[in-house]
Amino acid sequence: MNNKVTFEMIKEAKENLKGVINYTPIISASNISKNVFFKAENLQKTGSFKIRGSYNKISSLTEEELSKGVIACSSGNHAQGVALSASKRGIKSVVCMPTNAPLIKKEATENYGAEVISVDGVYDDAAREANRLSKEKGYVFIHPFDDPYIIAGQGTLGIEIIEQMPDVEQVIVPIGGGGLISGISIAIKALKPDCKIIGVQAKGVPSMYGSLKENHVVTVSDATTVADGIHVLTPGDLTFEIVKENVDEIVTVDEDEICAAIVELLQGPKIVAEGASATTLAAFKYANIDTSKKTVCLISGGNIELNSLERILTIGNIKLGRIFAINIELEDNAESLSKLLSLLASKGIGGVDVRRQYVTRNNDINFCNFYISFETKDIKHCKDIKETLIENNYNFSVI
Amino acid sequence: MNNKVTFEMIKEAKENLKGVINYTPIISASNISKNVFFKAENLQKTGSFKIRGSYNKISSLTEEELSKGVIACSSGNHAQGVALSASKRGIKSVVCMPTNAPLIKKEATENYGAEVISVDGVYDDAAREANRLSKEKGYVFIHPFDDPYIIAGQGTLGIEIIEQMPDVEQVIVPIGGGGLISGISIAIKALKPDCKIIGVQAKGVPSMYGSLKENHVVTVSDATTVADGIHVLTPGDLTFEIVKENVDEIVTVDEDEICAAIVELLQGPKIVAEGASATTLAAFKYANIDTSKKTVCLISGGNIELNSLERILTIGNIKLGRIFAINIELEDNAESLSKLLSLLASKGIGGVDVRRQYVTRNNDINFCNFYISFETKDIKHCKDIKETLIENNYNFSVI
Repeated sequence: MNNKVTFEMIKEAKENLKGVINYTPIISASNISKNVFFKAENLQKTGSFKIRGSYNKISSLTEEELSKGVIACSSGNHAQGVALSASKRGIKSVVCMPTNAPLIKKEATENYGAEVISVDGVYDDAAREANRLSKEKGYVFIHPFDDPYIIAGQGTLGIEIIEQMPDVEQVIVPIGGGGLISGISIAIKALKPDCKIIGVQAKGVPSMYGSLKENHVVTVSDATTVADGIHVLTPGDLTFEIVKENVDEIVTVDEDEICAAIVELLQGPKIVAEGASATTLAAFKYANIDTSKKTVCLISGGNIELNSLERILTIGNIKLGRIFAINIELEDNAESLSKLLSLLASKGIGGVDVRRQYVTRNNDINFCNFYISFETKDIKHCKDIKETLIENNYNFSVI
Repeated sequence: MNNKVTFEMIKEAKENLKGVINYTPIISASNISKNVFFKAENLQKTGSFKIRGSYNKISSLTEEELSKGVIACSSGNHAQGVALSASKRGIKSVVCMPTNAPLIKKEATENYGAEVISVDGVYDDAAREANRLSKEKGYVFIHPFDDPYIIAGQGTLGIEIIEQMPDVEQVIVPIGGGGLISGISIAIKALKPDCKIIGVQAKGVPSMYGSLKENHVVTVSDATTVADGIHVLTPGDLTFEIVKENVDEIVTVDEDEICAAIVELLQGPKIVAEGASATTLAAFKYANIDTSKKTVCLISGGNIELNSLERILTIGNIKLGRIFAINIELEDNAESLSKLLSLLASKGIGGVDVRRQYVTRNNDINFCNFYISFETKDIKHCKDIKETLIENNYNFSVI
């Protein structure tokens, strides 16, 4: 049994964090489901929960350690959490980032007060450099998840959830390295043992899911995911033990489901969720979870690149049936295009994008291919349009 | 002096609304300014502040009036506010909407419990029908803004702002018909007379701004605006009197500024704001307001159409220098295109969209026009790229 992180430590972390962090709201979304609620850590300082763990870790250091400062390796939310925590304690912080990390993240971390060191190469190279500097300069290394004080800090979210919603029946938490769900599950199992704890990972990077299956920590092969916050190939040793003991179930969700959940969170409860956060609503909707239970989905953060948000909206809207795109073969004249658009207009579609492909290969030399996309209402509407096109003998494929 | 809406009535409204509405958070955004804070009514029930006024109005009705039910005319937030308020009081509600209202708004209003009547024509036709039905069936007509109880309900926001941030120095509030700012200004001038109240309107629809200038209520000519929530051509008589007495200044903001503010609210404080709401941050940033004062911007609602959000992101990102688009003349071969892209890549641009225009008119028959857009970092980055293109003798125009 885990005895490195106790409920007592989480209560102490809550004391440490008093006056430092925001007590974030739980937000309802009756237009999604009357049983689903969101703990909105996107409204936390630095835009994610990470400051809870890093500030608590720093609070545990000795005066001597504090005087030397701390170091971390991250190009994401952990970097900003460590930077702001250190500033709030008035100590030095250094963050190693791979050179290809987005400029906006580097700037944000500097603005929170850290010295950022750009390291040539990928994440692993930056991590090695952070370790080297930690040894050379005596900076205390702040691990992103596999550390009892980090876990205890994140666990304060478990206490808050039960305080804010004592009758909650299940909590869904994203899993990357496992620090967040470890802390939350210890707190909730102490306060309300019958509350179900469900973990969720991206289908492409199922490291904790796979580790539980194999019954030991495994490293999964790399894959891209929109949920960059939980893009961790090897879970922690400590977090693995805690998850094995406390977590009732781990599910996975795919990229389209995550994008659709991002869209639904913007539209329903007006929540800006990054990919990792949206996995919890995606799980609620698509992973065969018991939706009759009063459920809190943890929104772990809201730090989403706005450039990618446009792409995510498109993918999410396609999944939700709000955009429909086809390649279609038409006779190459204005009349045939006009006839098609008039048919689509009669079906109540919204804005249309039409592109004629100059280079096409058709059986009939008088025909040409068009890419056409348009706004639709829902999946039923798309299905109805597809059937209408078939009835009218159009030759097309759905994109 | 206004004596139809008193501070006493607003305190009563606060009692009436207890347990009915959310006490919405005030959210900081240190990455925008340490002096700016947002009262997040996008997290209110129905996604906007409107339920405060409509529920308070319904609470003022007699048993006989309640037994007959209420009627309203709206295709926006007021419709949903009235529908949910009536459901919470267990009475009948009818909402008249023009037939061209978005399906999603009609469904939302029905889901909150109202009977929706689609009326052929525009808003005015729907309003006429609502008035006719009110007389015929005895439904109480719920005005969207020019009503003492509506104003008193919205005024509860003023009390909350002072409770949550007693040292606030100025508050910026969007103005459509003027109900929201009327209520808020009465409450704040009662509690903290030296707190400045600034109103903001869309530049295209400056109805209250123009009315104050003329010193009587005027109707402005129609124009489109992304801030549909404050798209009101004629302010109220009562609200005009209150605004004249209480509001220190009214400013206006243009469409690009509103779109840029929507983007900044998503990225900084993770707030989903509809156009009307984003006017307040746009005013703080672009309308020569004293930004050294501790300021609360009212986020009146978050009901934004996601289909239009994609377009808004594009306009906002252009305003913020995060997308740059040009029409450029190139020699029509792969080498010249490759040379240009290599130059742009050396400047650190992000994703690129390249479109060759098949039909172009150039001085040299060997040249062709291209539309090229790409992701940039900020306005300085765009300027630097523009200068580089000029230095390299490209013939181009910025879109």
